[in-house]
Amino acid sequence: MAESKFALGLDFGTNSVRALIVDISNGDEIATYVHDYRRGKAGIITDKKDANVARQHPMDYVEGVDGSIKGALKKATKVKGFAPENIIGIGVDTTGSTPIPVDRNGQPLSSSSEFKDNNNALAWLWKDHSAHAEAEEITDSARRTHPEYLAKCGGVYSSEWFFSKILHCLRVDPAVFNNAYSWVELADFIPGVLCGENKPQNLKRSVCAAGHKAMYNKDWEGLPAKDFLKALAPGLGDLRDRLYAEAYTSDTIAGLLCHQKAEDLGLKEGIPVGVGAFDAHMGAVGAGIRPGTLVKIIGTSTCDMMVVPDKEKLADIPGLCGIVDGSILPGYFGLEAGQSAVGDIFNWFVENLTESANQTQDMHRLLTEKASSIKPGESGLLALDWNNGNRTVLVDARLTGLIMGQTLNTKPEEIYRALIESTAYGSRVIINRFEEYGITVEEVIACGGIAEKNPLLMQIYADIFQRPIKVSRSSQTCALGAAMFGAVVAGKERGGYGSVEEAIENMSGVKPTVYRPDKERSQIYHKLFKLYQQLHDIFGTEQYSGNLHHVMKELLQIKQEATHA
Amino acid sequence: MAESKFALGLDFGTNSVRALIVDISNGDEIATYVHDYRRGKAGIITDKKDANVARQHPMDYVEGVDGSIKGALKKATKVKGFAPENIIGIGVDTTGSTPIPVDRNGQPLSSSSEFKDNNNALAWLWKDHSAHAEAEEITDSARRTHPEYLAKCGGVYSSEWFFSKILHCLRVDPAVFNNAYSWVELADFIPGVLCGENKPQNLKRSVCAAGHKAMYNKDWEGLPAKDFLKALAPGLGDLRDRLYAEAYTSDTIAGLLCHQKAEDLGLKEGIPVGVGAFDAHMGAVGAGIRPGTLVKIIGTSTCDMMVVPDKEKLADIPGLCGIVDGSILPGYFGLEAGQSAVGDIFNWFVENLTESANQTQDMHRLLTEKASSIKPGESGLLALDWNNGNRTVLVDARLTGLIMGQTLNTKPEEIYRALIESTAYGSRVIINRFEEYGITVEEVIACGGIAEKNPLLMQIYADIFQRPIKVSRSSQTCALGAAMFGAVVAGKERGGYGSVEEAIENMSGVKPTVYRPDKERSQIYHKLFKLYQQLHDIFGTEQYSGNLHHVMKELLQIKQEATHA
Repeated sequence: MAESKFALGLDFGTNSVRALIVDISNGDEIATYVHDYRRGKAGIITDKKDANVARQHPMDYVEGVDGSIKGALKKATKVKGFAPENIIGIGVDTTGSTPIPVDRNGQPLSSSSEFKDNNNALAWLWKDHSAHAEAEEITDSARRTHPEYLAKCGGVYSSEWFFSKILHCLRVDPAVFNNAYSWVELADFIPGVLCGENKPQNLKRSVCAAGHKAMYNKDWEGLPAKDFLKALAPGLGDLRDRLYAEAYTSDTIAGLLCHQKAEDLGLKEGIPVGVGAFDAHMGAVGAGIRPGTLVKIIGTSTCDMMVVPDKEKLADIPGLCGIVDGSILPGYFGLEAGQSAVGDIFNWFVENLTESANQTQDMHRLLTEKASSIKPGESGLLALDWNNGNRTVLVDARLTGLIMGQTLNTKPEEIYRALIESTAYGSRVIINRFEEYGITVEEVIACGGIAEKNPLLMQIYADIFQRPIKVSRSSQTCALGAAMFGAVVAGKERGGYGSVEEAIENMSGVKPTVYRPDKERSQIYHKLFKLYQQLHDIFGTEQYSGNLHHVMKELLQIKQEATHA
Repeated sequence: MAESKFALGLDFGTNSVRALIVDISNGDEIATYVHDYRRGKAGIITDKKDANVARQHPMDYVEGVDGSIKGALKKATKVKGFAPENIIGIGVDTTGSTPIPVDRNGQPLSSSSEFKDNNNALAWLWKDHSAHAEAEEITDSARRTHPEYLAKCGGVYSSEWFFSKILHCLRVDPAVFNNAYSWVELADFIPGVLCGENKPQNLKRSVCAAGHKAMYNKDWEGLPAKDFLKALAPGLGDLRDRLYAEAYTSDTIAGLLCHQKAEDLGLKEGIPVGVGAFDAHMGAVGAGIRPGTLVKIIGTSTCDMMVVPDKEKLADIPGLCGIVDGSILPGYFGLEAGQSAVGDIFNWFVENLTESANQTQDMHRLLTEKASSIKPGESGLLALDWNNGNRTVLVDARLTGLIMGQTLNTKPEEIYRALIESTAYGSRVIINRFEEYGITVEEVIACGGIAEKNPLLMQIYADIFQRPIKVSRSSQTCALGAAMFGAVVAGKERGGYGSVEEAIENMSGVKPTVYRPDKERSQIYHKLFKLYQQLHDIFGTEQYSGNLHHVMKELLQIKQEATHA
């Protein structure tokens, strides 16, 4: 019997990095280790003067590579049948857009003595919103001159994204901008670190990052036109030449594990390292994405992912976060949608409106238990899941929550259930949008902590989706997805796989429990969803007569004036 | 110097009766005593099989007369200058509609051995809703044949009112109905007890009770036509002859304190006892009502009262609870409006959605304190005050609450303040309705516990009303109002007053603190009120294009189906 082969997945999250070693024959996760970032607060460096700022220190990433891999290897060596030399490939996923200003050699500016104390020289974490004005500027400019740039990313360019952040840096800290030879996404930076080759022009950039965050598309010449960027700021146009012309899917080898790293880590030199991608996208692969299957990562917010063969003609789908060829699976359009808050809404409720004190998790359990005995429709409540705006399909961060139907007898568990239901309706709107554009959603695979821990929520989702929901077998689908790409870049010749589909077939899977829609409950929810849809359209869009869109906006306007009065 | 003269006010509430002895020269409240009802739960007798049932035992009333008066007299005799023989008149207010089935002598059926264990033979307390089907039947019938009957009482005949309850009794318990010679409102029963003359045909019935609850009006022949009642049920038509042809204002003497009662209580025989009225109406008098002044009794719900000289022509005002000539002041139309829940909404929030545990009052204080530092508009929240439906001006018990504008940062004190504001907007709608029909609201006099205890709420109300609000000097305006009518029925010849206006002038007053609208805050609230008005119209009425009226109704329909599934 042949020896087992293993792949290594590295998953760079917001507060830590996880290394996962997987038996590629069956997806068994034989060892995992989480390395916490050491700088800032749980890895995040903030700014007292601007609550929008969120940075990370590149050294946390560099240390995280070694720390997480060594930790996982140490645990794996205790597992029978494992040997470090049988790790045949490495895959990487990260948060994003998290761009880092680098010098000619690809070294972060923050490692130079000149910029070591300058937070603008750090990595600009995905959730940094300091570039909101620049995002609006880019959106406005694209709307006027290149509407096609926006058609693939929901119609609005976000403050969280690549060019917004760089343009903001150019405006507020020209010294950092001018000294940055290039800017590198974290997903591109890590393979460079592993391969000992960080020169920007030699990095193979991720099409996932490029397509979803930097308006890169083969339909035009890759990145946005030089003139477009120049019009925003001449320096931004010049920077384009020092970025990249081509971007790659993650089944492409980014490089080979270098001698130094191999020695440091105790791995074989020359192991192929795949081109990086974003966590949610590799998570979708770890969960077993395929045409007809919507993968839903449920956490504080959600990410809804689908794939469509790229030989099929695909219209621009209004309201989706992104449509990028190859961003999830090579040969398929990767479609990304999502809700700006899901778990966050439940947490908000429990932390602010219950007797939770310091027992938040207990209260979630208690409310879930009580909510389980409420029948659909029985509370008379209906809510909009917009406490953090609406990402898909309305793409409007300035929408707010609503709850109606309260009486003097309304109980907290009824509100809790109504909030769960509201997130399900919001998710159903996304499913319907996919289907309106010919993309059938046959089933849902859910992953994330809530999917594993809250059967009530899963059943409500199934009843409202009117589709079966499966739960990913793995609790760390992102790292698993990364490892699967490791197995793919290893290739058949090293005992790996010839395609991502093959890796999915062998390495991913779902739990035995399937949540199936109940006919009776679905029928009631169907009526309620029709009411939700009306509130959604009337408060969320301007296209209906008698719309109330302006009510939420005027409230925010009055709020802003009151706050600054 | 002449001896002081005193009047006695009796206030029959939901759980107890209060006696108040007042110096008529200046309104000084020299002694008060509260007698709690002893039967049922805090005086209320319920039915496990029907949550709508709420009855009271007439013996609690009879005992309450003696208990409360004796208690007050005992305290008063310790006051210098008081002598029982200087009590010159008695006034009575009660809850209503609280009708009691009585025999030929006016004795409650419940005192007969045949009916002593039958709850239908008890007093049917104002908040008994068991007659909801009969209320709909009466409303439907009046709409078809006598729309004028409804025009004076908000367009809907309520399940809480006189004929609904009697018709329900006829339907569910014919034995009680057939053995009842007549039905007597509590407000008419008590003067009978004091005067030792309860024969139905000898009672002087209250125009306040008759006009507001029994469709009595001089514009037609008093009570609804015999044919109208006969069409509902033949027995109801026959009953009309054993009710009353005439009803009286409370400055009319109902009778004189009888020998037996005078002896029992230690009062002078022959003191005049005034015709009774409802608590809120006499409360308005106790608070000093006059044209241009809206008296607002703020409790778990609110009652908003105004008076207009009855020589003026007054249109039917849609949405008001009642318009009755003389129901508050003789010679004036008494106008009654109100909100179905105010304090009840704050209590609901604190009891269900805060860490209040058993410290409800502490939590009200804490939230009020925190809410005080929030500026108008700053929370971005807007609510509809309909957790218990809307009494005025929509007259729709089947409306429900709504709150919007929530973010992930929304705090409980912000919601608490938004709920206070919502009740102020709801109240402003009532003020606007008065003014649309030419009745100017120059100022507001507030009374009730919340008015005395919550300066934040009072200031918010003043800012939203854009009118000054004063607070009644007395904490028991209902009992004070009753005593004032006592002073009026005593008349000048006994040292009392020649008119209710004179009594108001001398016996009522306000506290020194006046809540005046702040210009800046009023301007912000004016913008918010315009948004409230839109939600109010769109969710509350059917007359707007794009209305969402059906959303609340469908939710209730689904709720009802779900609850009975």
